[in-house]
Formats: sequence, C-alpha cells, structure tokens
Amino acid sequence: MYRSHTCGELRESDINTKVTLSGWVQKTRDKGFVVWVDLRDRYGITQLVFDEDRTSSKLLEQARSLGREYVVQVTGEVIERTSKNPNIPTGGIEVLVDEVILLNKSKTPPFTIENETDGGEDLRMKYRYLDIRRNPVKNNLIFRSKVSMEVRKYLSDHSFVEVETPYLIKSTPEGARDFVVPSRMNEGQFYALPQSPQTFKQLLMVGGMDKYFQIVKCFRDEDLRADRQPEFTQIDCEMAFVEQEDILDTFEGLTKHLLKEIKGVEISAFPRITYDDAMRIYGNDKPDIRFGMEFGELNAVTQHKDFGVFNSAELVVGIAVPGGASYTRKELDALVNWVKRPQVGAKGMVYVKYNEDGSFKSTVDKFYDQEDLAKWAKITEAKPGDLICVLSGDANKTRTQLSALRMELAERLGLRNPNEFAPLWVIDFPLLELDEETGNYHAMHHPFTSPKPGQLELLETDPGAVRANAYDLVLNGNEIGGGSIRIHDRDVQSTMFKHLGFTPEEAQAQFGFLMDAFQYGAPPHGGIAFGLDRLVSILGGQETIRDFIAFPKNNSGRDVMIDAPAAIDQEQLHELKLKLDIEA
Amino acid sequence: MYRSHTCGELRESDINTKVTLSGWVQKTRDKGFVVWVDLRDRYGITQLVFDEDRTSSKLLEQARSLGREYVVQVTGEVIERTSKNPNIPTGGIEVLVDEVILLNKSKTPPFTIENETDGGEDLRMKYRYLDIRRNPVKNNLIFRSKVSMEVRKYLSDHSFVEVETPYLIKSTPEGARDFVVPSRMNEGQFYALPQSPQTFKQLLMVGGMDKYFQIVKCFRDEDLRADRQPEFTQIDCEMAFVEQEDILDTFEGLTKHLLKEIKGVEISAFPRITYDDAMRIYGNDKPDIRFGMEFGELNAVTQHKDFGVFNSAELVVGIAVPGGASYTRKELDALVNWVKRPQVGAKGMVYVKYNEDGSFKSTVDKFYDQEDLAKWAKITEAKPGDLICVLSGDANKTRTQLSALRMELAERLGLRNPNEFAPLWVIDFPLLELDEETGNYHAMHHPFTSPKPGQLELLETDPGAVRANAYDLVLNGNEIGGGSIRIHDRDVQSTMFKHLGFTPEEAQAQFGFLMDAFQYGAPPHGGIAFGLDRLVSILGGQETIRDFIAFPKNNSGRDVMIDAPAAIDQEQLHELKLKLDIEA
Repeated sequence: MYRSHTCGELRESDINTKVTLSGWVQKTRDKGFVVWVDLRDRYGITQLVFDEDRTSSKLLEQARSLGREYVVQVTGEVIERTSKNPNIPTGGIEVLVDEVILLNKSKTPPFTIENETDGGEDLRMKYRYLDIRRNPVKNNLIFRSKVSMEVRKYLSDHSFVEVETPYLIKSTPEGARDFVVPSRMNEGQFYALPQSPQTFKQLLMVGGMDKYFQIVKCFRDEDLRADRQPEFTQIDCEMAFVEQEDILDTFEGLTKHLLKEIKGVEISAFPRITYDDAMRIYGNDKPDIRFGMEFGELNAVTQHKDFGVFNSAELVVGIAVPGGASYTRKELDALVNWVKRPQVGAKGMVYVKYNEDGSFKSTVDKFYDQEDLAKWAKITEAKPGDLICVLSGDANKTRTQLSALRMELAERLGLRNPNEFAPLWVIDFPLLELDEETGNYHAMHHPFTSPKPGQLELLETDPGAVRANAYDLVLNGNEIGGGSIRIHDRDVQSTMFKHLGFTPEEAQAQFGFLMDAFQYGAPPHGGIAFGLDRLVSILGGQETIRDFIAFPKNNSGRDVMIDAPAAIDQEQLHELKLKLDIEA
Repeated sequence: MYRSHTCGELRESDINTKVTLSGWVQKTRDKGFVVWVDLRDRYGITQLVFDEDRTSSKLLEQARSLGREYVVQVTGEVIERTSKNPNIPTGGIEVLVDEVILLNKSKTPPFTIENETDGGEDLRMKYRYLDIRRNPVKNNLIFRSKVSMEVRKYLSDHSFVEVETPYLIKSTPEGARDFVVPSRMNEGQFYALPQSPQTFKQLLMVGGMDKYFQIVKCFRDEDLRADRQPEFTQIDCEMAFVEQEDILDTFEGLTKHLLKEIKGVEISAFPRITYDDAMRIYGNDKPDIRFGMEFGELNAVTQHKDFGVFNSAELVVGIAVPGGASYTRKELDALVNWVKRPQVGAKGMVYVKYNEDGSFKSTVDKFYDQEDLAKWAKITEAKPGDLICVLSGDANKTRTQLSALRMELAERLGLRNPNEFAPLWVIDFPLLELDEETGNYHAMHHPFTSPKPGQLELLETDPGAVRANAYDLVLNGNEIGGGSIRIHDRDVQSTMFKHLGFTPEEAQAQFGFLMDAFQYGAPPHGGIAFGLDRLVSILGGQETIRDFIAFPKNNSGRDVMIDAPAAIDQEQLHELKLKLDIEA
C-alpha cells in the first residue's frame, strides 16, 4: 500500500498517528540540522520534517538528495507544527519522517510546477502532463468534471436518457467542413466525424425516445481562430412534444441548477430579449447584461442641424460611459483612435462630456446646443459625470462598432466581473442569414430549424424577414447554448432545402434518411446544444477554453505534445486505397 | 402545451381529471358504436375511448381515420374502465376523448411496432428509428443510460475525475488498425482515432490526476466478426500510487454497486483465479463459473493401457456432464460429431457413461476396466447418472476444444442462466504471447503492462514465462474488463519495446512523448478498462451488444440507415490533398 492518507487530509486531530504518504517533492528547505520537504499530490501539500535530533543522519542525507518532482513514499508520525501555516488546510501539522522510499526520480522540469509558472504557452503545451500538475490547470479539469456530472444529474432527474450516437457517420455539405475517415472495408468511401449529432437526435425523437441528451465530442475542420478547437464538447439535448416555452423552461432550470450547485449563485427568471431588440439595444446577439450602457438611437434629435455626417447616416447611436466626463483630452483621443482601428472600423466618433455641473461639452458644439445635447443625454440615460460616445453610419455596421466600444469600455471600467453571472435568452432569431459575398441565404441556426407558424410563405417573398423559434442562451456576453424547434414535416423540410439551394436530388442523397423518417409519424420536437468548453470556462470565471481542456490543440490544429497529426506509412495508405496528391 | 401527462402515468386516482396526452396510435379497435385507441409514448400506453353516446359522431369518425403510428394530441376526461387490464399500469382507466388534434400522419410502417415484430434484422436496421419505438430496443437504451449513470456516480463518489481525452491523436503501429483522419491544415498528415485513451490516461497519472475515468468511444478498423463494432464504448480508468490489490478492490466495488443498483443482486467477494489455473480447470481465460463441469486431467490414470491415442497425447482431459448417462446412442454420436466440427476441431471423443447403478460403460472398454473408469469419475467429479467426455492431444488445443464442449453442454442443459451473475478475477496473465505464425512475441495486454517484480530478466531467457500484474474481470463467461499495473520507468519501457521488436528509433517516434514523461517523476500507476457495450448486454441478460447500441453498424462496418460510409466529392479530396488509388 503506497499511502494511508493523501497529502491533503491530515489535520491536528491526526497528531501522533503513524502515516504513509506518497507524492511529489514540491520543494526542499535545508536548514542544516533540519530539512523540510513539501510533499504534493492532487489533494494538497503536507510538510515533511527530517530533524537531526529525531531522525538518523542517513535519513537527513536522503532528504537532502530529493530533487524537485521526485516521487517518494514516506512513513512517519504526524506531529504539531511549531510555526503553523494558516493558508493551507494541513498547515497545523507536519510529518516526522522515519522512512523514505524513492519511487521515481525526475529530471529538472522545464518550468516551475507552481500556481504561477515561468513556462511559456508552447513549453507548457509540449509538457502538458507537467502543466496539469499545477493547481490552476488541475483544478480546471476537476471543475469541468464536476460541471459535467451536475449536468448529467439534473437531466437524468428530469427523465432525459443519455444515448450515444455514432461517431462514424456520413459527410454532409452543411456549413463547416467535415473531418473524413477513409473506410478500408468499403473501398473509396469515407465516414465523416459528426459536427453535431443533430440528425441522430432528431431520429431519436422520431423513435419515441422523448427526452434525449448526450455530452459528446463534435468535430469541425475549420481554420482555427483563437480559442477554437477542431474537436469540442457539446451538451446535446432534444425533447419531443414540446413548444419553445417547454425547452426554455427546462434548460433555464438546468442553468440555474449549475449556477447554484457549482457557484452558489441563485438567479430568478432569466430575462428574454428578441434578436431584433438585442441588436438594437446592444448591437450584439449575445449581449453582456452585467452592466447597462444601452444604446440610445439619436437620429430623431440629430437631424437638420447642418452636421452632414449625421444627416446622411442611416443610424446615429450613442452610449453613456459612467464617469467618462473626467477623461483627459489624451484619453479621449486614444478612444477615438481605438474605434478607428481596422478591427473596429468606425470612421470617427463624436463625444459629449456631461459635466458634473450639468453642462455639456462636445466635439460637435458647432452644430448642437446645450438643449440638443441634453436630449442625447436623456436618450442614452447619461448622468452628470458621464461621457456620451456617438457613432454613425450604416445601421448594422455602426451597431457592431458601438457594441465593440461598449464591451471594451466595460472591460476597462471593471464592469465585466467574472464572479457575477447574468444569463438571458435571446429569442426570435431570423431563420435565414444573407451571405453578403454570394448573395445567397443560408440557415442561421441550421436547415432543420422550423420557421415560425404562418411564416413559411414569406420564404418566397421576403426570406430575410422570416423568424424562427430559435433561441440562444447567453451568459456574460457569450453564447453558451443555442437551439430551435425543428421541422417535423417532410414537405416543409423539402421546401427549406429548396430555399437553401439544394436540388431535390442533393437533399435526398444527403438527408433522405431524415425526410423518410418524417413520413412515419415524426412528433413535434426541438432542442438545444450547449458548448461545454465555453460554459465551463465562463462558470470558472476565465477567458480561454483551452485552459479547461486536458490536451488541447494549437491554432494549427496540432497536438504538440504527441506531435499529431503525422505522416502515415505507405502500406497504411495502400490499404486505404489512397495516394497523397502533393507536389514533391 | 402538448400534454399534461405522459401515456404511462394516469391511474384510478386521476379519475375525473381533464387531461391532454400526446403520442402514437398503437392500434384502433372499432366496435361500431365505440372506438378504442391505444395511445403510446415512451412511458406507456393509455387507452382512449370514443363513444357514440358520449362524443360527437364527427369525433368518432376522426378516431376511425387514425392509422397506425399516427401522432395525435388528445384532450379528455379520465374515466374508470369497465373491463380493467391488470397487465399494464394504466389498465384501470381510460380517457374519454373530446378533442383530437392530428400532429402528424404516418405511412404504414415496414414492420409492426410491437414487442415481437415481424421485421427482419436488415429492415429494422434500415428503419432503426422505428425499431427504437419498440419496447425491447427502447428499454435497452434506457437501461444503458442507467448503467452509465451508476458508473459515473460510483466513480465520482470515489474521487475519480472524468477527463476527456482527445479523439484526434496519432497513429500507432500497435495491434489492430487505426482509423485515420487526413488533416487539411497539415498537408499529407493524418490524425488517428484512438483505439483507447491508454497513453493519455497514463500521462494524466504522470500529471498527478491521481484517479481518472472516462466513458469514451474507441475505434478499431478490424475485420468485423459477429458482434464487433468499429466504434465501441469503454469505461476507461486509471489510478496512481496503487498496487494490483487496490485496483481489484476498487473495481470489484464498482461491479458490486452495479449488480446491486441495477439488478438487485448482492455478491460477496469475487473469486480469483490465476490465468494458468483458468486454462487448466476451464480451458479458457474467461471461464463461466455459473456451473461446475471442471476439467479433470486424466494422463496419470490412462497411460500404459495399450490405448495409443491417450499414450501419445500431451494431455488427456475430461469433464462430467450432469445427467448425461441417459443420452441415447444417437445423441452421443451427434455430440462426437459436434466436437469434430472444424469450428471445434477435435479428432474424436472418448466417453464414459456412469450409470445410476454405479457401473461404467465407455467407448474404450477394451482398454480400461471398471476400476480405471472409476478413477476417471473421481478425477472429473462425475456422479452416477453423469457422462464423462474425454478429449486428448496437444495440451493447449485440447483445452480449448473441451472448453467449447463444456460451454455448449452447459447451454443445452440450461446452466447458463442470464439472471444469475458469477463474476471472477483472472489474474497473473502472461506478459507476452507467442504469435505461432511469425514466431514473435507480442504484448498480451499491451506494451505498457509491467512485468511482475523480479521477472524483467526472464524476458531475455524465457519470455513466455514472464507473468504480469495483469487482470481481467470476467462475468458469466465474458471478459467485461481488463487492465494491469503499468510500467512507470523509462528504461523498463525501453526494454519492453525492444523485446516487442521496436527499434529504438521506432519506439521514440511512436511513444517518445510517453517515455519522456516517465523522466519527470512518473508515479506507480495502473488501471482497467471495461467494455460498456458488453457489460450492458450481460447485465441486461442478453447476447448481442448490437441490441444495446442506438445506431449500430453491420458486419461490413456500414450504417445502412444513413448509408455510410459514402463517396465524397472531388473537391473535398482535393482540399485534403488526396487521390483515390482504385482501378477504374
């Protein structure tokens, strides 16, 4: 037996107990006549003491020889510490060691295994197994496990059945690229890895499973942006005989359960906002509502004042920045430059200082008097001491720009508190989205999303106006879940595919099995999927999903630890009936 | 709202309640003045009644128009049934319907959606979504979900952390073939899908995760035998700072928990048997111990009697078949023919009837007298009325043949009761296995398994004799789990790879990341993996794993429902820099 206790569990009540511990040497302090060693495992750190007076000199010598990250098993007696450490749970005791067994040596690790490390991202990824020894990473992985378990408990308690759907499926032309898997047994044919189990969960509804969920890996062969992974984890859910209200209710319940169990936060009914309102008020379909700074539309109060920029703009819109009236000229210039950066793309910015004395001072005083500016302040809900920032131009672009400014300023003002949680539902999404490059519409959610009742006809005349029973769950400015009520009628599904540019043959070849299934008594159904990586990172109060993935890939889709992907040998290619098509 | 109750929950206590139900029309019985409809959902069946006296004739007409598997929503009042059906939980009531809303029609299903169906295997696979509506399939999937949840509960309660390991990893030459995934972003390179997360779970132990588990899909591109799937699910577990005893103890606990929670069966300590004993006593490393029929070795009592077949045999071994003395000559001839089938491969069989009067009658009476045969009976533990079946020849082959006969006879005698559970541990497996074709040794478990302490040297002199701390958990004649204590020392791992025929360069290229990790303080560790598909099917008292998989593949690795794998288009191949290498 390697241990009687873990390194995290001994307390003053254990004093005088003989114990055996195993773990890693975190550090050694040698004071000549006494040597202390911090022994670490997943559960904590226990201080070991080797003392000239009470242990053999041979043992003391052995203690001195222990390097960082050596693995040892020690036996000894729990004793009271003379100088207690109130910062750790085992800080009241230490173990007076009488035997040390060296289980494994360690080379000097390439970075320090401490909460704060000196290792850069690349090095830590290459030696991920060492990075995982560090508390921040280790605790993230344990946290993720706990969140997953709570999700499963809640859904199981609500009659959901976890069903495993296949990973080797069929390639579809939808959206992002599939990863494909050549089949040796079926020459020249390929499986695809699922981008999501969408069609399978719908088939489970046709199959009467009623309430399905699965925590499942999904795959997208997209060019990786920061914080995107080629494989990611989804909490995938579907329910039959439901309307949108039933789904929102169920998954609001799940989210509340998680916030309560995991974060100890109780939240009452989640606000709901339509997609159109979210865009109008926040310029964003995943608004962060931990703070206000709502958009005020100023067109009505800015026209006919000889300010051509505003007169010709489709939209003039502003926000009030709390306390911003005190910004210096230099700070304000920097802010104007910030919105003009290519990543934001505004042509310029008008601003108004709402001074504490009630007066206004703006960059457009030539065109607008105090009374005009007072109207702006009213509409943007600015208070004395605030700064009003105003952008103008094309409505969609201006909203996106002002949203970026709003988020940036909130960040600077410390309004995006990671320990505050502000969920909301965004509902009534458009069914289709115009691809500005091609001029074609594509499904905003996916092609299985049902148009709102009575709007099917609009597909012919005004496709962009069709709304869907599609909804996103947004938490702190991030979409953590999204779903919809699905089409369950073969003819409607056919019509949808037609509008998305599929020929009937293509639709049949790709999704015939689903449309066939709809002919055999498909129930009304709908669902939702949560991005687990994102959900966990937000609940954990952190930014990057990579910190919550045990073995993430880098931005080139590589696992630098195992050095994958890699070349495979000729024989393997030959068995798969494949040749590389690369210039030598 | 589509329903106020499910079709499985109404009882006599609900009489006079107004309810709304949704579900599928299971069947309609038309008695002219009254129509009954059985409405089905996942939760049960509720009888609907449409009655000339109490409902409109229009409604009655509507009821008559409902075809099998139509999806309807009905509203009505719960009333007492005149003739109750004690066989179903809702049998005391029916719903007097006052409104029917047709939610979806159904074509006539290709097979009956009943517990017993007229649909053949192929048809049911093609329309798997209809097959899932049938109770036997639906209940299997719900059962699987329950088993998975209990596994997670038990392991979470025992400090295990579920960590998701990557699916896009690196191809390795070990054992079965990998499925590979071409990488678009890394030209000419491939990921592989994991055959198991073996190396990752070991890295998690190096990373201090201490106790890891994961319920995870694994992939093997093997030629499919009956009841093998290219993708299968594993309960994958690993622990640090453990000896074999700790692992057996933990997972015996898990298995007991499952048997108790899922089957209501309490089992005390699991028997343990060494691999050598299992082979000697049962001719099999996964013995079914629900019944006896243990092997009795007869060499010592069969020699020097002029029976050349036995004299020249490496092994003479028999089993007692309960009640077999009453078999007719015809039955006995059939049995001899059965063991001579190519699938079993025996050259012949000697048998002895142990008559109720205590006398013996054998096929070798010319060579052996009553006293000789009495010795055989003693060794095989035969009782009057039994039949002793004896095979002889090469030891290994003969044991395998007699094991096949033992299983076959037990099956015929009804000794393999699916509701009885007899787990055991098989321990002390050989480290290496001789490939008789190539004459090379390969790892019996996998190359990361540790030889027993002190046996490393034997690798040079007598590789076949080296034993490992490797163990299988066997349930009712099936291996449901297997694992080992791992190597955690770089040099030992190098030596293992050398003995398995890797050059140092190959070992470094394939497993360098693991051997490097061993240099940074790898703790002693070990683990186990359970085949979930098999475990669930045995707990469910059934034979085929396919019945417990939502969307299984057929023996050619095809999903006939979605028609995968399939060709992909030229553009997709081009993006992946691949060409098909197939003769036109």
